[in-house]
Amino acid sequence: MTLARELLASAGTALDDLVLANHILFRERVLDGFGHVSVRHPRDPSRFVMSQSKAPATVTRDDLLVYDLEGEAIDAPGRKLYLERYIHSAVYRERTDVMAVVHSHSPAVIPFGITAMPLQAVCGVCGFLGVHVPVFEIRDAAGPATDLLIRSQALGLAMVRALGGAPVVLLRGHGSTAVGNSIAQAVYRAIYTEVNARLQADAMRLGAVNYLTAEEGAAASATNDGVISRIWNSWKAQALASA
Amino acid sequence: MTLARELLASAGTALDDLVLANHILFRERVLDGFGHVSVRHPRDPSRFVMSQSKAPATVTRDDLLVYDLEGEAIDAPGRKLYLERYIHSAVYRERTDVMAVVHSHSPAVIPFGITAMPLQAVCGVCGFLGVHVPVFEIRDAAGPATDLLIRSQALGLAMVRALGGAPVVLLRGHGSTAVGNSIAQAVYRAIYTEVNARLQADAMRLGAVNYLTAEEGAAASATNDGVISRIWNSWKAQALASA
Amino acid sequence: MTLARELLASAGTALDDLVLANHILFRERVLDGFGHVSVRHPRDPSRFVMSQSKAPATVTRDDLLVYDLEGEAIDAPGRKLYLERYIHSAVYRERTDVMAVVHSHSPAVIPFGITAMPLQAVCGVCGFLGVHVPVFEIRDAAGPATDLLIRSQALGLAMVRALGGAPVVLLRGHGSTAVGNSIAQAVYRAIYTEVNARLQADAMRLGAVNYLTAEEGAAASATNDGVISRIWNSWKAQALASA
Amino acid sequence: MTLARELLASAGTALDDLVLANHILFRERVLDGFGHVSVRHPRDPSRFVMSQSKAPATVTRDDLLVYDLEGEAIDAPGRKLYLERYIHSAVYRERTDVMAVVHSHSPAVIPFGITAMPLQAVCGVCGFLGVHVPVFEIRDAAGPATDLLIRSQALGLAMVRALGGAPVVLLRGHGSTAVGNSIAQAVYRAIYTEVNARLQADAMRLGAVNYLTAEEGAAASATNDGVISRIWNSWKAQALASA
Repeated sequence: MTLARELLASAGTALDDLVLANHILFRERVLDGFGHVSVRHPRDPSRFVMSQSKAPATVTRDDLLVYDLEGEAIDAPGRKLYLERYIHSAVYRERTDVMAVVHSHSPAVIPFGITAMPLQAVCGVCGFLGVHVPVFEIRDAAGPATDLLIRSQALGLAMVRALGGAPVVLLRGHGSTAVGNSIAQAVYRAIYTEVNARLQADAMRLGAVNYLTAEEGAAASATNDGVISRIWNSWKAQALASA
Repeated sequence: MTLARELLASAGTALDDLVLANHILFRERVLDGFGHVSVRHPRDPSRFVMSQSKAPATVTRDDLLVYDLEGEAIDAPGRKLYLERYIHSAVYRERTDVMAVVHSHSPAVIPFGITAMPLQAVCGVCGFLGVHVPVFEIRDAAGPATDLLIRSQALGLAMVRALGGAPVVLLRGHGSTAVGNSIAQAVYRAIYTEVNARLQADAMRLGAVNYLTAEEGAAASATNDGVISRIWNSWKAQALASA
Repeated sequence: MTLARELLASAGTALDDLVLANHILFRERVLDGFGHVSVRHPRDPSRFVMSQSKAPATVTRDDLLVYDLEGEAIDAPGRKLYLERYIHSAVYRERTDVMAVVHSHSPAVIPFGITAMPLQAVCGVCGFLGVHVPVFEIRDAAGPATDLLIRSQALGLAMVRALGGAPVVLLRGHGSTAVGNSIAQAVYRAIYTEVNARLQADAMRLGAVNYLTAEEGAAASATNDGVISRIWNSWKAQALASA
Repeated sequence: MTLARELLASAGTALDDLVLANHILFRERVLDGFGHVSVRHPRDPSRFVMSQSKAPATVTRDDLLVYDLEGEAIDAPGRKLYLERYIHSAVYRERTDVMAVVHSHSPAVIPFGITAMPLQAVCGVCGFLGVHVPVFEIRDAAGPATDLLIRSQALGLAMVRALGGAPVVLLRGHGSTAVGNSIAQAVYRAIYTEVNARLQADAMRLGAVNYLTAEEGAAASATNDGVISRIWNSWKAQALASA
């Protein structure tokens, strides 16, 4: 039995949840044919699990591979890997609190990455965003002629520096990366970052926006963390019903 | 037989309608994983019926609990309750005309709660909104560091004071609460408050808006109340067909 | 056999098309629980066929009734009728070229009825709209305290005066009425009036709009009338497949 | 065996992909009842394959016809042809690098064709658009009274002159034409032109837009061409699952 197989065998229900997370994020229009979601290995914090290069809607358990914290896949000869696996490896290396990562191109978020308008929490269910969501400008790290992708560990680490201790970082001209202490929390944050972006853009057209205070954001976020399982179970039921 | 079981047994078809209302409001994108809908007990006005804490799309008859007008569930040991059940208890206590309540985070409405732009009726089917929809600012009642939730009867009563005699109140940074003299009317109002918000925001981008007069709103509302069963039956048929 | 039954029996395939038109307009989000579509009787131009009062998505052949050009239903004791059947009767009485009528509350159109912004054709498939779509302001006909509904033949005739020879008239704070020389053309116009409203509103946010000239509108409209069956057959196939 | 039958027989899997492309573009809301997609014959570059005049959602293999580079269908007596087949014939005649063409009326793109606002790439997955997407104004070629359609080879060639070496050209008051070196690439470009238009319009409402540099667009486009099969396979799976 290879190391990768052993690690997959010992990951337990995290694998099922990871497959479901792919399908949920597709159904909720956060991932389309692009983007990916990963989970840190529940028993070996120096590894994480993610699909081989494949569209999220079609990911199955057989697509799951084990990666190390430099972004290399273990025992995966011949498998095509996501070019941007370094988003995940760099986060897991630097943020030991993070257990799951979602990278997406969700549509309402992108405009906040390509303008000077800061994204910030406008309602309680998005309180985790607080009063400031950082933006990663790849030009600052790699110049004006990249393909915008996080295609190396060095770029991944540059992105993590922009992320800092935040739950979400926007990637200019590209998308965003949301992190969480569980698959459910990372999925929740990815989906509600998109929700907040849409609400904030809509509100700005009506006049000056009454944002959450930092204290309201923190309090609402703490409360929401306690009820994430409610909405996760609902997403799960819908994804399973439509499978 | 416990009191709660007796009360559920005597509630008749209201329970089926309440389950359907959960599914309809989910299908119409007024409720997502959050929000809730309740009905005053048809025979005992000092109680109301609502699901235990659960995502609306997945609510079944077995999830329904009986609550008193202080927001406490009757004979429900071990059941997880919605944190914001006081929205419902406070409304039923203060507004004896109300038979059903919907609390939602529907997306087009939220921008009107976080800007100074008043929501008001722009078309006949939304005439019930009249010329002014009140907004509840929880900071005025509980300071700048709450989690924005109506997590006590006192906060529920503060929200009801903002609601006054209106059919809908917006909750700043949170969502809205719609009330009605039947499940169908409360559902209708929740859905069409969202419709009006979208239409009003769209119209404002085209120029000055020709709103309904107070008289038009009242007359249109009276007419619409007479045809709510038509649209309710349509929503019901769709919800049952997709079950 | 009653007169109504005879007339329904002699209407042929128009009845199937009328039922389908209800379902198509619901699927295309032009009708929701409100609105209605009718067809002039193919053999008796002094009558038209429309459903009893019912949500469009649920209309079947058994719901169809025959009406005269004053808006009265023939042999229909006990049936509930649409309050606004006079929209249809007035159009058929005054516009002998019209064979089908759609009245809807489609969402992108309403903002053009409640602001001073004129709706006009922005692309070839919407060429039928030309350079000016009229608006009916019910306050001019009936004062500032109506329920906005066309609930009498007199109001229907006032609306038809605003319609004039046009294919579509907007109803302030209410919706629109589209007419055509066939069910397919009226359905097409109702759907593409909504499409044009959305495109025009979106374009206006980008800058000054380069509208179709009157000549372009007329030429495009003539061309499109020749290919309506292509899109009608597609809508029909989708409606039948999802039935 | 007629020439057309021989050519269809020798086209291999391109025909299946062409049928799928019709269904994918419909599902992704790039084509509705209008628009068309074609492929250059893989063995005879002087011919291309496209459906007879039919709504994309309903196209099957039996609808496919062979055309020459003047836009005439081969061995197709009695078949109704798309009026705008010259869009395709003119592109294939002038652009020998092009293997597939999509003509659509996708909604977010149209506003950029009827205002002075240039469409340009705002994110990596849309990098192929570069810093300038050309617009074809039919009035310049054929005066102010056309029906806006590309209904002759001469108009097709005028459109191709506006297209130049670009991947996409907007047609004022009409839609757009996207070209590619494969069906997958042309479909990808048609879909992501629509995505970019929506993102760009949304971003413009937030402030000045930080567009991709020409170098970023070129680099991102080259990268994306390497992963188009991932998203194509996902679209294909969804289209087949819903068939």
